[in-house]
Formats: sequence, structure tokens, C-alpha cells
Amino acid sequence: MENATDKKAVVLLSGGVDSSTVAAIAKSEGYSLYCLTLDYGQRSRRELESAAAVAQSLGAVEHVVLELDLARIARSALTGYSDVPLDRTDEEMHSQIPSTYVPARNIIFLAIGLAYAESIGARDIFIGVSQVDYSGYPDCRTEFIEAFERMANIGTKAGVEGGSFRIRTPVISLSKAEIVARGTQLGLDFGLTWSCYTDDTKPCGRCDSCKLRLAAFARAGLRDPLVYE
Amino acid sequence: MENATDKKAVVLLSGGVDSSTVAAIAKSEGYSLYCLTLDYGQRSRRELESAAAVAQSLGAVEHVVLELDLARIARSALTGYSDVPLDRTDEEMHSQIPSTYVPARNIIFLAIGLAYAESIGARDIFIGVSQVDYSGYPDCRTEFIEAFERMANIGTKAGVEGGSFRIRTPVISLSKAEIVARGTQLGLDFGLTWSCYTDDTKPCGRCDSCKLRLAAFARAGLRDPLVYE
Repeated sequence: MENATDKKAVVLLSGGVDSSTVAAIAKSEGYSLYCLTLDYGQRSRRELESAAAVAQSLGAVEHVVLELDLARIARSALTGYSDVPLDRTDEEMHSQIPSTYVPARNIIFLAIGLAYAESIGARDIFIGVSQVDYSGYPDCRTEFIEAFERMANIGTKAGVEGGSFRIRTPVISLSKAEIVARGTQLGLDFGLTWSCYTDDTKPCGRCDSCKLRLAAFARAGLRDPLVYE
Repeated sequence: MENATDKKAVVLLSGGVDSSTVAAIAKSEGYSLYCLTLDYGQRSRRELESAAAVAQSLGAVEHVVLELDLARIARSALTGYSDVPLDRTDEEMHSQIPSTYVPARNIIFLAIGLAYAESIGARDIFIGVSQVDYSGYPDCRTEFIEAFERMANIGTKAGVEGGSFRIRTPVISLSKAEIVARGTQLGLDFGLTWSCYTDDTKPCGRCDSCKLRLAAFARAGLRDPLVYE
């Protein structure tokens, strides 16, 4: 068990830029990493492989991939409904809650992370939300994170007994360019990560997520190690 | 679609006495029922069959059984770890958080119910928690329910856009005897429900859950239609 310490962190790891950077930050703070990836039927299966590669590269003690077939209850562009468009105009990207919003996804993700944390005796749950580039997502805002944390400490055994849970959001105030810079500084190999909404061998470079990623690397003055179509 | 109205409710249905009564109450209030059962690896598989039978008997529009392998992340007597005892003394039952506590179970259950509700356009989520007989469970208390509701209305698109979610807990202040009486009054067939922690053809009559159920029927002066071992 490489990197095992008494300071345990649950890291919600999707395999993308934000959550991978957050995992690297948790490691840099001396935590032993217990990574949790939710396989919720997302269109991109590559994300799951990337999450495993990132967890391994950071010496995680454990990486749990948990299946939850959200497509059965929630309609979203990210869970394969083809009538929901993946491409949006720049204006749409900043003016409304996007079609790629998965109902209550971060709430579910945090809830399962909380169960995991309580079970292994961790008190810190790291999540890679950013309210800078994702202002349209209600579950990426500080106000939401605080409300979740409060609820978690009222609704769990460990919380009630005094061992307060903390929802850690070290990139919440960072732009994606700043996140990319921070991850690079920590030695994270972004070539292991995956941002594209599609599932091809190479990222498309055209979907919202690729656009944001490419713009972030450009703004940070860094080279994205991924090769695009 | 029997009983379909514009007033939709998500009902978190385990197949036990409390959640089945809550489903009957939701129906009596004129809601069309969208029942959600979590298959989280609980020891008792009979619960799942009972949930389906109850949903059908109440004319639910839909009954979704969603798998989530909580045993991979959470250790509890209810998910099959044999080193956690199922039997407790009466004193234990009232003095501490029981071994059958599943970390963050109701939080996860409510989070998934919230995603379901947001997806179908429901605003009311019914859950069969009672703080009378289950005072030891932090996630069965009013304080927790209120904190969850607040978090849900901050962290979801529908919540942010003004269509407030309500977590409905119609049996939270009722004893199990009162719950049994209320369900009977509404014509619920308790012979369809299942409370036993075991998975035999007949309920054991000895586990905590059977004991509580039998005592409730006795106190309510009603006959439990189930035949015990």
C-alpha cells in the first residue's frame, strides 16, 4: 500500500482535469487516497479508464468504481440520450444550466462518497467542482457544498458523534486554466486524463468539454499532452 | 397507467411496513406514484419482491429498482457482513446507533430519489422514516430531513429555478403501532410487505425488525397477516 498514512481522503474521481488535479492536491497535502468513481452510464467510457490510470499514478490506496444506472431515472446528454444536444453556443455555455446537467449528480456522488468515508473512517471528501467555469451548474457552488456538508454532519453516525465531515473543494475558485497550471505544478500527467464527451480513441476537440480544456491549456501557456482528432 | 394524475410523487419504497404505508398515504393524497427501490445488496432479497408487490397493489405508474452495490464501500449488518450481529438487546435498541445502520443510506436513497423526481418533474419525495421507534438513526430525524431538503433546493436545477422540492415524511412522528394502524385504515395489505432481516420463506420472528413489527401489530390490536416461523 504505497502512500498509506493515517490521514485518509475520499476523492471523487471522474478521470477529468478537475477531479484529477484535486486528487493530486489531496496527495500533496499528505492524505492517503481512497478514490471513488461512479459509473453512471456516462457516454464516455474512456473516463473510467482515465480515472483508474490517474488513481494508480498517484499511488491511491484504493480505487472503487461503483455502478449506478442513472440513465434509468435521469435524462441527460451525458447519459446517452441522443435527443439532447452536446454542442452549445458560447452564449448558451454561460447563460443557462446546460443540457449536460445530470439531475442531482454531484449530490448522489457526494452521498456515496460520504458513505465510503464514514465506512473507512475518513473525514475529508474531495470533489473537483469549480464555480468559475461551471457557473451554470447549481451543484458546483460554494453555497451548495456548505449545505451538503451541514446535512452530512446531521445525517450520519460519525457526524452526529462529533467527527465532522469536511467537503473539500480546493479548485472551486479556480478557472480551468488555473486548475491546469496547478495540476502541472504538482506533476500530474494530464495525458492520463480524459475530458471529451465522446468515446473515440482520440478526443474530438469540438464538444464543450474539449473546447474548455483546450482553451484552459492555451490560457495557462501549457501544452495539452493529449492528441486530438 | 392506472391512477395517473398530474400530481407526481416519488416514493422511496423498501417493501417494509413504514415505506409501504407512506406509499399508501401518498396515494390517498391523490398523487400518482413513482416508486423507487434501491437494491443495495441488502441481506433480505425478499424486500425487493415485497416492494414490487406493494407498488403494483397501489397502482404505481412506475417502479424502478436500481442496483447500487453498497457492500463494496460500506460495512453493515444489513449488507451481509457476518461479523456484525443482527440481534441486539432491548437496551441496545434504545441506547445507541445500531449495527444495522448503513452509512449514509437514507442520504444516498434521497439523493437518487431527488434525481428521479427532478427528471420526471415531481416535487414531492416521500420517505418512510420515523424518529419514534428509530431514534438511534441520525438519518431518520426531522432535523436531518430539513437539512437535506434545504441542500436539495440549493443544489438542483429545479430547486434553483424555484420549483421547490419537498421531502415528505408523513410517518416521522408516528410509532410503528400507529403506522400499522394508519396503513390498515388505508386498506394496505401488510401481507405483501416484508420486515425480516433474513431471507427465508417465512419471517423469523426473532430479529429486531420482526420483533418491532410484531410488537407494533400487538399494540395496535391488529393481526399481522404474515405467517412466522
